[in-house]
Amino acid sequence: MNETLDLTAFLTEVKEICNERLEILLRPPEERADYIHEAMNYSVFAGGKRFRPALVIAAGRMFNAPPVALLDLACGIEMIHTYSLIHDDLPCMDDDDLRRGKPTLHRAFDEGIAVLAGDALYALAFEVIAHAAPAHIVASIARATGTPGMIGGQVADIRLEGQDITHEDLTYIHTRKTGALITVSLKAGAALGDVRPEELDRVQAFGEKVGLAFQIVDDVLDETGDTRVLGKTAGADREREKNTWPRVHGLDEARKTALGLIEEAKNGLVLPEREAIIFTLLADFVVQRVM
Amino acid sequence: MNETLDLTAFLTEVKEICNERLEILLRPPEERADYIHEAMNYSVFAGGKRFRPALVIAAGRMFNAPPVALLDLACGIEMIHTYSLIHDDLPCMDDDDLRRGKPTLHRAFDEGIAVLAGDALYALAFEVIAHAAPAHIVASIARATGTPGMIGGQVADIRLEGQDITHEDLTYIHTRKTGALITVSLKAGAALGDVRPEELDRVQAFGEKVGLAFQIVDDVLDETGDTRVLGKTAGADREREKNTWPRVHGLDEARKTALGLIEEAKNGLVLPEREAIIFTLLADFVVQRVM
Repeated sequence: MNETLDLTAFLTEVKEICNERLEILLRPPEERADYIHEAMNYSVFAGGKRFRPALVIAAGRMFNAPPVALLDLACGIEMIHTYSLIHDDLPCMDDDDLRRGKPTLHRAFDEGIAVLAGDALYALAFEVIAHAAPAHIVASIARATGTPGMIGGQVADIRLEGQDITHEDLTYIHTRKTGALITVSLKAGAALGDVRPEELDRVQAFGEKVGLAFQIVDDVLDETGDTRVLGKTAGADREREKNTWPRVHGLDEARKTALGLIEEAKNGLVLPEREAIIFTLLADFVVQRVM
Repeated sequence: MNETLDLTAFLTEVKEICNERLEILLRPPEERADYIHEAMNYSVFAGGKRFRPALVIAAGRMFNAPPVALLDLACGIEMIHTYSLIHDDLPCMDDDDLRRGKPTLHRAFDEGIAVLAGDALYALAFEVIAHAAPAHIVASIARATGTPGMIGGQVADIRLEGQDITHEDLTYIHTRKTGALITVSLKAGAALGDVRPEELDRVQAFGEKVGLAFQIVDDVLDETGDTRVLGKTAGADREREKNTWPRVHGLDEARKTALGLIEEAKNGLVLPEREAIIFTLLADFVVQRVM
């Protein structure tokens, strides 16, 4: 079996089913809401890889989660991811003009609409997820996106810009800003199925390592990539004196750490099922871009 | 029995138990999150009347909802209300300097922190609510705050500023911008208890009328009140050419409509229980400020 082909096929499948479902979920509830839904759709269909939905679905399938609910859970997580990008790009935050090769939402529409479209995606995500999953999964996703997770990391990232920070602060930022949503994607997918507590712990450990590696790779690409390939302004982190892994530890060390984390993540899997291979391939996928 | 005293006692009780619980719920999860929680606390404890929590608790008690979960549901709703005020006040939205007699959050901190503190309150609200209530209640609250509700109304309000609008557009804006959260506060509280579908319909009809009256009264006060009493800049709506009830229908007609809605709301109650009196008093409370 060609493993690379298998991952490509899986990612293509996820993208197709998610896009089809997202299109339905993102229809305006009434004509007067057309405009805000146009803005929401602009960002959701800006060309995302649907990596987080792939994690949700891979984890869910491994533990036999019901497929229809699993797809909605995946779509809800993608809406949350998109909302976080829209707010991160705002002038009062990272002030980015480009995202996935297109003008950011506040450039294409305006700032007020960008704030509200982000808010609206977040609301719709919880509506969709709460229809698909029991309340304890909803609570864990809310927590991962709040101050114990994503927002906690984002605030620390902004507040420590331009300062010399410790390895501990940097790890705090990266594991929360990016890692928390990646980890909860895997955990929520698994929890929708028939997962045992010790398996969920292993899924969490895998997610934490992959999530940290993901943000380190993003930092490396900001240093080494070009704007055309990245779809966002290269070198922007350095210009803003962001606390990136290469800035604190150097480029080589950053690459090495990311690769090491992915190896650790894979070694810790201990999953005998055939589907476990998708986890391994998804982990490799994260570091492929810097190899 | 002195009915006025009864309402005052009820509102005082709600305020006390909510503030005590909110203080616990709003503690930072770790030291690094102190700053963003300071911002969240600044807005949550800026002197709100806890009117929406009072609706949640009144409705919940009427249908014997479990009191501990009911209190958390009420606190979650208040966090959502606060988040919506923070984002509404942003420079890219209503650009308000004053809220409840204090500088708005983006004035006291900064714009980026105001966006994130709003986001964080919304996240925490869903975490708290999902721990307290079943998923279908979480979904109904998410929906009421999204484009079918609060955000739909807010977008229409912004987009139609300065235009001559129809009575239908104005009603659309008011019932969603303000009415949706008020209605879902009552419905969610009732649904946490032992409510029958036809009773829930009556609670909804009551909420819709009270919610619309609430926003009309707000519009009237913006025209007639002074900044010191309001705690926010009086006349701001007119200056921004906002679509208010007095602007479209005149001050007298606005007052009359609000009073009429409250009478209709009370007449439609048909609730024999002793607690129904709290509903009546809460409805009267909404229009007291313009009588």
